[in-house]
Amino acid sequence: MRRAWIKALVLDKAHNSPVVILGIEGTNKVVPIWIGACEANALAINLEGLEFPRPLTHDLIVNILDALDARLEKAIIHSVKDNVYHATLVIRDLTFVETEDEEGSDEHALIEIDARPSDSIVLAVKKGVPIYVSNEIVEEHAIDLQIPEDSSDEEFKKFVESLDIDKFREMLKDEPDEEGEEDE
Amino acid sequence: MRRAWIKALVLDKAHNSPVVILGIEGTNKVVPIWIGACEANALAINLEGLEFPRPLTHDLIVNILDALDARLEKAIIHSVKDNVYHATLVIRDLTFVETEDEEGSDEHALIEIDARPSDSIVLAVKKGVPIYVSNEIVEEHAIDLQIPEDSSDEEFKKFVESLDIDKFREMLKDEPDEEGEEDE
Repeated sequence: MRRAWIKALVLDKAHNSPVVILGIEGTNKVVPIWIGACEANALAINLEGLEFPRPLTHDLIVNILDALDARLEKAIIHSVKDNVYHATLVIRDLTFVETEDEEGSDEHALIEIDARPSDSIVLAVKKGVPIYVSNEIVEEHAIDLQIPEDSSDEEFKKFVESLDIDKFREMLKDEPDEEGEEDE
Repeated sequence: MRRAWIKALVLDKAHNSPVVILGIEGTNKVVPIWIGACEANALAINLEGLEFPRPLTHDLIVNILDALDARLEKAIIHSVKDNVYHATLVIRDLTFVETEDEEGSDEHALIEIDARPSDSIVLAVKKGVPIYVSNEIVEEHAIDLQIPEDSSDEEFKKFVESLDIDKFREMLKDEPDEEGEEDE
């Protein structure tokens, strides 16, 4: 499993679909994931640190977790099925820890919840917790960018801006179907 | 507090904004609430009973509640502030009940979470739990439809379809500002 972070959120103009581009720690590779417009909007809001007077849907999730004494620990994008990325939210149920014996409680208190990468990434960004991508995905679906790993954000931004996002699709080892490698 | 239900989900074409129209039990009144496109989409999906292979954002909320042994009991749309409707999700923490003394546990196990009406309504529809609207809202913000209370869904549908949604705004006692009476 490799730590990942958001390198960019771009628009695939050909398909009018947002794409989140994850960088993979210790490599020069990225994983592009096509996401829905609503989730992209939520992600952009959080990346820009915008605040709204009323709780948006992912704020509501965070508020529910807080109210139920649960803590998001990490998001894991673990597999690709039928060209769709699948993720898991790992949540620690703090109430449960408190009522269990010390011994072994850590293990039992962790809850894994099936989720789309888009929602998982938004929540990870909101809570500042790590995003991981499985080795399987890195090996089979990541794209080698052919730019220096230590290139600055500015250099990467230029690279992305100059890139025809369709090239990402071509660069994918397994050509995705019309729906692309997305999360819904 | 009055029980409410979804009479219609319509589009305010003038502002290109979806509007959920709540009927109020025991009255001939409705409360129109302007909502966001993403939440309207989620609501429409649930009203039509469509199912998707992957959990959408509100499915994720339901799955988180289930995993944390919490049960949505009701949604309450309780007030209007600066032309924006505010709601509360009432959630029962079942884990908490189990670890508390029987006496008084019911009261403590109820958690109220601040939410927008749109998210609240989507979740209430998903879980089949009641939606309530405060008496204050019914008295000050509901609109008398001037059609028989016992009119059929078909008759109401015709009424709504023939209605210029802008008339709803005109019918509101306090003319909303440009953003309208909405939930975000």
